[in-house]
Amino acid sequence: MPAMVADNGKSLVAKAMEAVKSHIRDAGLHVGDMLPGEGYFAQSLGVSRAVMREAFGALAALRLIDVANGRRAKVAALDGSVIADSLEHALSTAQIKVADVWDVRRTIEMRTAALAARNATPAQADRILALAEAMSKDDQPHAQTTEDDIAFHLAIAEASGNALFNQIVVSFVPLMRISVPKAWSTQRTEDERRDILGRHRRLARAIAERDAHAAELAMAAHFDEAIGALLR
Amino acid sequence: MPAMVADNGKSLVAKAMEAVKSHIRDAGLHVGDMLPGEGYFAQSLGVSRAVMREAFGALAALRLIDVANGRRAKVAALDGSVIADSLEHALSTAQIKVADVWDVRRTIEMRTAALAARNATPAQADRILALAEAMSKDDQPHAQTTEDDIAFHLAIAEASGNALFNQIVVSFVPLMRISVPKAWSTQRTEDERRDILGRHRRLARAIAERDAHAAELAMAAHFDEAIGALLR
Repeated sequence: MPAMVADNGKSLVAKAMEAVKSHIRDAGLHVGDMLPGEGYFAQSLGVSRAVMREAFGALAALRLIDVANGRRAKVAALDGSVIADSLEHALSTAQIKVADVWDVRRTIEMRTAALAARNATPAQADRILALAEAMSKDDQPHAQTTEDDIAFHLAIAEASGNALFNQIVVSFVPLMRISVPKAWSTQRTEDERRDILGRHRRLARAIAERDAHAAELAMAAHFDEAIGALLR
Repeated sequence: MPAMVADNGKSLVAKAMEAVKSHIRDAGLHVGDMLPGEGYFAQSLGVSRAVMREAFGALAALRLIDVANGRRAKVAALDGSVIADSLEHALSTAQIKVADVWDVRRTIEMRTAALAARNATPAQADRILALAEAMSKDDQPHAQTTEDDIAFHLAIAEASGNALFNQIVVSFVPLMRISVPKAWSTQRTEDERRDILGRHRRLARAIAERDAHAAELAMAAHFDEAIGALLR
């Protein structure tokens, strides 16, 4: 961004951003809490309103704060879309390969499956089972199968009880919206489709039966066999 | 950010950001490639220069583009610092727990250890061994041990050969700068220190000997015993 360079080489905007982040931390603010205005920070840091406006804009772009039109800025909720933007950019500019992303997803989702088996509430386990069943009822690949499949992975991540894993899996959703329909539309025999759906159900049952090891292995098999086919 | 709302409710700035991202993708641009100026996009999208300036600023904040003072914007390299900012924000606002981050790190670094055992070049394996040895030579916890320890984890991530895993581990560095000295300064007997250092060396040797399974188990042991103690 337009760098107004301070004495030590760090831009004034970067310093202003740091000051806002420090304020959030030191004041112990939580999601939704109101921040002081740009004027307050401009005065206490001795920088111009223009610098503070740019700092607030950058923090909003990073989704660390919410700045609604004309309203006071608030502390924002962790939002997987920032990581999603980085992922899509890195893929579209050939900095990372599709196979790299699959390996990261496989690694993370094997763990969310194991954690879900340990930590899912009865309602979460039921929902995971219901989504696996819903997918099986669709006898043709279509938009609903894609949505159920994505919801299935998100429900497992949420049931892991680890908010960071959950946000990382959320950040994969834009990529899933591209890859999941592709995976389902790949030429498959009826037997292959039945295998894939059976694997989803097996994974859901392992979670419902609190078998973390089986859940982890079922997730690995899902990635290796159903989705890995896309890469071959 | 200041939302100039377009007809369909999506802000003009958000649309302008999308247009720049689409241009990068459709033109097949790579890191360091030059982008058209704000004026080009403003004209082709029919938006004001102010909107384009804000969109470029937000893309720069997300490190998707580099905008040096007065120079033409360039496509930016994937930068773990964006994820790092999200992590620090989520921690400081109590949206995620320290234990959540440890579990994510443990899961990811078990995999980078296994991949490094498979993919490390001889030079990378030598460097990993050398860093484990360097740590052992420090007989007191001090800044150099911290740097060697962080460099050790980064070297393993780089040797994994997966650029996304590498950037995710890079994004943990700011947290490591806080937690690693804490881990080393925790009251420990000489025997405990020797165990921890022995575990680093065992991990390095497993990678050098191409034993992916041993490397993965050694990394898990490292997290469970050396660092996990911090959480108890």
